[in-house]
Amino acid sequence: MELHTLADNIRKGNIRAMGKGITLIESKRPEDARKASQLLDLLLPHTGNSLRIGITGVPGVGKSTFIESFGSYLTEQGHKVAVLAVDPSSQITGGSILGDKTRMEELSRNYNAFIRPSPAGDTLGGVARRTRETMLLCEAAGYTVVIVETVGVGQSETTVASMVDFFMLLQLATAGDELQGIKKGVMELADAIIINKADIDRQKTELARQQYQNALHILRPKSRNWIVPVQMVSALRNEGIPGVWEMLESFRDAMRQSGEFDENRKRQSVDWMWALLLDDLKALFLNHKDVQGVFPQVQDAVAQGVTTPSAASRRLLDVFRR
Amino acid sequence: MELHTLADNIRKGNIRAMGKGITLIESKRPEDARKASQLLDLLLPHTGNSLRIGITGVPGVGKSTFIESFGSYLTEQGHKVAVLAVDPSSQITGGSILGDKTRMEELSRNYNAFIRPSPAGDTLGGVARRTRETMLLCEAAGYTVVIVETVGVGQSETTVASMVDFFMLLQLATAGDELQGIKKGVMELADAIIINKADIDRQKTELARQQYQNALHILRPKSRNWIVPVQMVSALRNEGIPGVWEMLESFRDAMRQSGEFDENRKRQSVDWMWALLLDDLKALFLNHKDVQGVFPQVQDAVAQGVTTPSAASRRLLDVFRR
Repeated sequence: MELHTLADNIRKGNIRAMGKGITLIESKRPEDARKASQLLDLLLPHTGNSLRIGITGVPGVGKSTFIESFGSYLTEQGHKVAVLAVDPSSQITGGSILGDKTRMEELSRNYNAFIRPSPAGDTLGGVARRTRETMLLCEAAGYTVVIVETVGVGQSETTVASMVDFFMLLQLATAGDELQGIKKGVMELADAIIINKADIDRQKTELARQQYQNALHILRPKSRNWIVPVQMVSALRNEGIPGVWEMLESFRDAMRQSGEFDENRKRQSVDWMWALLLDDLKALFLNHKDVQGVFPQVQDAVAQGVTTPSAASRRLLDVFRR
Repeated sequence: MELHTLADNIRKGNIRAMGKGITLIESKRPEDARKASQLLDLLLPHTGNSLRIGITGVPGVGKSTFIESFGSYLTEQGHKVAVLAVDPSSQITGGSILGDKTRMEELSRNYNAFIRPSPAGDTLGGVARRTRETMLLCEAAGYTVVIVETVGVGQSETTVASMVDFFMLLQLATAGDELQGIKKGVMELADAIIINKADIDRQKTELARQQYQNALHILRPKSRNWIVPVQMVSALRNEGIPGVWEMLESFRDAMRQSGEFDENRKRQSVDWMWALLLDDLKALFLNHKDVQGVFPQVQDAVAQGVTTPSAASRRLLDVFRR
């Protein structure tokens, strides 16, 4: 009953209700988890109506400034924008990402924008679950664009890419040897590369654009219906921002037309279910008393090459099933 | 007892004994699996002494010719070379890979080379397990270089990269728009890119080399101690082959010196153990009678957005544990 009221208020876009709901989602108390689950079931029919955008880029690339500029533009276009973060280390590094709301001063004062920092210190899997569920809550609250940001700690880009419709990589307009190394695999997750601070050195920016385009050229595209573009912006000067949204809209249109948009979301949901299941099965296994008794020496024997991985896994499974 | 004799004969490099051992490894009969496991335990202390090289490249790139030329060169240098394949579809496509031994005519007649096609139709995981174990057997038999080939069906490159010390990508010497698309993620697995058929068009080859080098330049390297090279060869004319081996030796030296060589192998073994464990746990779960009763509709509800992945996984796990 109380949850029904909370759900109703969330659907009205009430900020306090949203905060309450997210607190339930982020809570680690089992009774809260049960409530959060019921709440999400109530909200679920009203979710899915946003464009989910993932953004990554190393610190210094101007992510906050970009999101500030991009988000403000979107609200001017009539959108409601939610900005979430996936970064398990954000609490440790002192909130380098979104923790300091003042870095998005304009957007944080914007009535049509909702900014939420990464949930408190947890594993990437835990943070991801909470962020996904918060995303659903924001959709139910009427937000039409959800931006999920990450600074790319560990596997966080892959995690973010697996929960959004579109994943973009922000890079700096340096070129040649200064061109920053892109993390393993990230280039291939990107649906677009955005070169920020393009106003500083036009020549370098153009060179960088060409280099990225060359690199993208030899990577097989994710979809036949989408050529990964390289766009240049200056978030600080609000240059190139409308072009980014135009590009996103043409992506969405193309993917909807081909059916890939819905397909992708369905696959993401089922993959997510499996990821959660496997995590739980792994926990069940590792918490098994007899398994705990033998696991360390079996794993060590494998690392030392004293037993084969298949013999070891067979032995451990026997212990588990016994 | 019989297995001890078999192990001894394998260690002597007896080809018939090797064939017998591999047949046990590839067999799907449970009693053979037990025997294979015992055999591997006997052989295990004598494994690990080869350089394990993975090779991928699309059909037509000249993989067989390259392996023929490269393998022959290695045997001339005093090496014993084993060539294995990971390709779950090789039986289906009529043995496009290694199945037709005549494609490596010279090497297959070479006393110091051992060629084994991909084990018969199975899942990638199954093929991978069998290939890994056959690799160990070959090492116990005194082979000092093990080449694992794949044509890159599905996730097979990732699988091969996870079982070798060095992973190389063979590409054709075409350039510009003709440059073939590299599959998602493969570029970043590569420890070297080898451009084959470099004799056909020197100019195009040089252009291709530059393009690859540019692309590699902006990908962060796997190790600080290794810059991924782009080398040009003509396998047909035996050009550039010694250079490939030199490059591999300097890789091995650098990785041994930094300790990454052993670290990598330990991690591979433990990762493999975990992969096998999770597969088995998943099978245990999917074979659970009560789970089978509800799984299809729960998965469907997730895909249709009627229930959240976390609620679904919680429900399924409850059924499993009940």
